[in-house]
Amino acid sequence: MMNIGILPLEKVKKGVMVEEIDFQSHAPFKSSFFTIKPGAESPVDSHKVKETWIVVGGIGTLTCDDTKIILKKGSVVLFESFNTHSVKNNGNTDLSIVSIWWDAIDD
Amino acid sequence: MMNIGILPLEKVKKGVMVEEIDFQSHAPFKSSFFTIKPGAESPVDSHKVKETWIVVGGIGTLTCDDTKIILKKGSVVLFESFNTHSVKNNGNTDLSIVSIWWDAIDD
Repeated sequence: MMNIGILPLEKVKKGVMVEEIDFQSHAPFKSSFFTIKPGAESPVDSHKVKETWIVVGGIGTLTCDDTKIILKKGSVVLFESFNTHSVKNNGNTDLSIVSIWWDAIDD
Repeated sequence: MMNIGILPLEKVKKGVMVEEIDFQSHAPFKSSFFTIKPGAESPVDSHKVKETWIVVGGIGTLTCDDTKIILKKGSVVLFESFNTHSVKNNGNTDLSIVSIWWDAIDD
């Protein structure tokens, strides 16, 4: 059994924090705790790696390409390569997401 | 972007619930929401697949092989193949874990 460390908190912008989980080479994916404070909105992101968001607390509105959906505790979404995505916390508690990403395999 | 569904809640035993996230073939791992109610303890588990627990709420005591450690929000542990593991919720709120598992690659 291994204790896995957490890298220092990165403030992406005011109210948007990422703490990457330091799996090093021990897992076939990377992961972070992603926290958005009430009223804050994450910058639009887009990348080749695939990513899933597992929502573990709070409520927010996800904008992905031209689609808007509500995210709340228990929601899970998966972004394909180069989907643009950002989320706004519409609630009054932290929006807490476990993000996991991995290499897209070219078809 | 894909909305990912959640499979029906499985009661492993009294106070121990698993809700598997239905990634189908879209991710290189499997994952579930794993919830242990106050006072409950998960059955001892051991398997070839590797597994990580990302603790998103609550507090508990993990027993892994001969080691006991405290788990709390923000703790992350990784189980190697055939580590035995169980966790007891020592707190007075739900112990909430995101579990992720994947095939162990034979060396």
